[in-house]
Amino acid sequence: MNTTPRLTEPEETPEELESLLAAATTAAADWGRRSPHDRADALSAVADALDAEGQSLIIEAMRETGLTEGRLTGELKRTTVQLRMFAEELRDGSYLRIALDRQDPDFVLGPRPDLRRWLTPLGPVLVYAASNFPFAFSVAGGDTASALAAGCPVLLKAHPGHPETSRKTAGLVRSALQSAGAPEGTFALLTGRQAGVSALRDPRIAAGAFTGSVAGGRALFDIASSRPNPIPFFGELGSVNPAMVTSGAERERGEQIAAGFVGSFTLGTGQFCTKPGILLLPRGSELPKRIAELAQNVPPARMLTSAIADRYRERTTELADIPGVEVLARGSEHADPSDIPQVSPTVLHAGSVADLLSEPALLEENFGPCAVIAEYDADEDLRAAISAVPGTLTVTAHLAGQPDDAERQLVSGLVALAASRSGRVLFDEWPTGLAVTPAQQHGGPYPATTAVSHTSVGTAAIDRFLRPVTYQNAPEFLLPEALRESNPLGLPRSTHQPGASQDWAPPQ
Amino acid sequence: MNTTPRLTEPEETPEELESLLAAATTAAADWGRRSPHDRADALSAVADALDAEGQSLIIEAMRETGLTEGRLTGELKRTTVQLRMFAEELRDGSYLRIALDRQDPDFVLGPRPDLRRWLTPLGPVLVYAASNFPFAFSVAGGDTASALAAGCPVLLKAHPGHPETSRKTAGLVRSALQSAGAPEGTFALLTGRQAGVSALRDPRIAAGAFTGSVAGGRALFDIASSRPNPIPFFGELGSVNPAMVTSGAERERGEQIAAGFVGSFTLGTGQFCTKPGILLLPRGSELPKRIAELAQNVPPARMLTSAIADRYRERTTELADIPGVEVLARGSEHADPSDIPQVSPTVLHAGSVADLLSEPALLEENFGPCAVIAEYDADEDLRAAISAVPGTLTVTAHLAGQPDDAERQLVSGLVALAASRSGRVLFDEWPTGLAVTPAQQHGGPYPATTAVSHTSVGTAAIDRFLRPVTYQNAPEFLLPEALRESNPLGLPRSTHQPGASQDWAPPQ
Repeated sequence: MNTTPRLTEPEETPEELESLLAAATTAAADWGRRSPHDRADALSAVADALDAEGQSLIIEAMRETGLTEGRLTGELKRTTVQLRMFAEELRDGSYLRIALDRQDPDFVLGPRPDLRRWLTPLGPVLVYAASNFPFAFSVAGGDTASALAAGCPVLLKAHPGHPETSRKTAGLVRSALQSAGAPEGTFALLTGRQAGVSALRDPRIAAGAFTGSVAGGRALFDIASSRPNPIPFFGELGSVNPAMVTSGAERERGEQIAAGFVGSFTLGTGQFCTKPGILLLPRGSELPKRIAELAQNVPPARMLTSAIADRYRERTTELADIPGVEVLARGSEHADPSDIPQVSPTVLHAGSVADLLSEPALLEENFGPCAVIAEYDADEDLRAAISAVPGTLTVTAHLAGQPDDAERQLVSGLVALAASRSGRVLFDEWPTGLAVTPAQQHGGPYPATTAVSHTSVGTAAIDRFLRPVTYQNAPEFLLPEALRESNPLGLPRSTHQPGASQDWAPPQ
Repeated sequence: MNTTPRLTEPEETPEELESLLAAATTAAADWGRRSPHDRADALSAVADALDAEGQSLIIEAMRETGLTEGRLTGELKRTTVQLRMFAEELRDGSYLRIALDRQDPDFVLGPRPDLRRWLTPLGPVLVYAASNFPFAFSVAGGDTASALAAGCPVLLKAHPGHPETSRKTAGLVRSALQSAGAPEGTFALLTGRQAGVSALRDPRIAAGAFTGSVAGGRALFDIASSRPNPIPFFGELGSVNPAMVTSGAERERGEQIAAGFVGSFTLGTGQFCTKPGILLLPRGSELPKRIAELAQNVPPARMLTSAIADRYRERTTELADIPGVEVLARGSEHADPSDIPQVSPTVLHAGSVADLLSEPALLEENFGPCAVIAEYDADEDLRAAISAVPGTLTVTAHLAGQPDDAERQLVSGLVALAASRSGRVLFDEWPTGLAVTPAQQHGGPYPATTAVSHTSVGTAAIDRFLRPVTYQNAPEFLLPEALRESNPLGLPRSTHQPGASQDWAPPQ
């Protein structure tokens, strides 16, 4: 069944692009003003439509990406669960953060007018689909779901790695939205590479969202930031996700840790942004040997696209050739009927933490089934390693179940440092397999993301596409329903009563 | 008493700058981990210190800025109220948005680990003080207060328009913080122009905040965005704040509207970012004549700095010279003992809305006591004007107390458009005189700000300096106190219980 996906997709003509941008702009005024409940119903309808066509979507995605049925079934479920989760967020309404300041003639700084603040949609959003999640970070993925939930029309630049899956999904999204009464232009697909760049320069686009490489994401971020009117660009780029193991943890469950690590860095053939790319082990650890053995037993698997495979081959060779780097397991490349190569895992040993830190290339993401091990002697090594790693999505620590005093001290000093370099700090688990839930954080300092204050996974992802607007002294008939005194939508609000400000006054 | 402030302030040497940056970085780890209550106490201590020295601060600021005692007394009060307001925000704790996802073996997408999310400080923030608020947007102003509250050390680039006021305030801030136990390096003053730019390029600076001109702010935004690791830059730049008056409102209270408008656009000699710079009146309105008369009666007043006065003179001449623009009141310039000129207001009449929109220069902020009037014939004129205005902090509408059907229809169609172009839509009041309260929004699409999702006034301003971090499966002893099961700080949290996700599953 496998055939090579076309990697160059048809370009939209300037007229076609103009018509898509115009439609999205017209839709923005309407879609953005629908009640949260209306948008929730539309998102649920999209989820239902994708579930109903799940079988054919999965078959198409298997053909185009080489991913397994099991993986794609789980990913499609995640995608529709995500859509329903945002629908629930809309029905709850607290995402609007409605705040009412009551008129207060005795306000400490002089009479205060009636002020009503809420969050409103930014406007049309341009979403770039990722290669590695043909459903969950693609056409109907988290960026699309959160932007539509926020009230923003979406122009979706398809990834050329799964063009037919994208078209099929887009058709389902469009018809479900239409049946649910969403305005024409609420969602549209772009396939052209140049059209994807031109659209980002268009003044009508209000934000961009991207998941992909540092080079690609940075180029787009630079375009978004250097426009005559710069716009927010939510890029989720590269991450090395360092993990460390204490000697207590190794003594207690070394085998389990080795197996868990290999399972995590080779999951999805290493093509996850949460892949643990660096493992820090105590000096003299037995784990490198065991990890190499386990990695050698992982069967080769197809990479997502030829471009990713080429880049991975190049980067892995570059790292393996660094003087002093030992190749513990040398991955091999195999032909695949798709013409996109299959690869097996590579494990590199950089030596000491000092050796690791002396080569910046070892600290950069290598997208694919390759991991780098280094050994630490003292607390300072770990501190130095975590400090030197570029901004990362995650930092992982494996500890003993009952850490002794030395281990407690070692780790206590590292946790805050890890939090300052990442968006998620995790213990005794592995960073792949991200829960899509309210308290999730998928983000981090650059280059993990271009927008450190946000997440691209979990309900808080909706915040990216919202901005505050305050109405001052507005007559009831001119207020959006959500802000009216009668609260016809029954939304949660926080209210600041008159007289509450006297504590702020200077002492007499 | 007036003397010319030095407009070139001493440059820090590279060694001095390095030492300030190093101290801020060291302080960040400590200050950021203090409990919100500790930081609240420190902010209150700063407020108390400024209030205690209020008299001498106000005298110094009068000398340097030419602003009146009344204005500066009010502004200093706003500044200390602001500090206490953020202290209360910290004591309340909901700004941390703590979210707990309980471990859930039956989570719809597979077992979910324990996840705990909160907001953490970004790190050292570089704040550029504004010229026009020597207290409230300067050394101890809203940006400083909100960054310190968030847990970020502040490097404050002083504005050269009030250097001694800045030094005096900085000394009080530093000693109050020190007495309250804040680490050395939590706050420091920069005076050099070049140092202010070099610091923004330094990798240790995690965010920038700025209030000032479009040209200056954009240059700094470009630096922040083009760093090897780009950082958030919260620039509050230019805004024209269009206001419109219906014929019903004019009939009902034309005189009051004319007086209110003149009071607002000439307040602070027109040097407020919320100055209503454009007034849209019904065709044939009597108000332009009355506005010109009232403006001619406003006595000349000193501008803040020579640079601002020069720019204002140049821009006002440029606008007055546009063919078709009628000068209804021609402002005059007068000598002042400070050598910074005094000016009286200028009122320009652009003609019709079509005339106004044909000259982009008329739609750009002119910082000073100048306003542009245009007359509209139909609904479409107002829609066109609001659409054409660059992103703005505010849009104002003056309506009849009991609008007739035609007026209701006219305005209903405009409110959503106004909200899409601005951060605050107000009715029957004027945009100057900003209430500092929870529901305030001071921001808007570019060029009003470089970060449309945020506000620089009101309690929500703290959000700018925070980013989310999630702890996954963390042992209790490694969690920050705020996230521990025992909740020793008594902070508000939202909790996601197990089993709550079953509704999100695909239908069977």
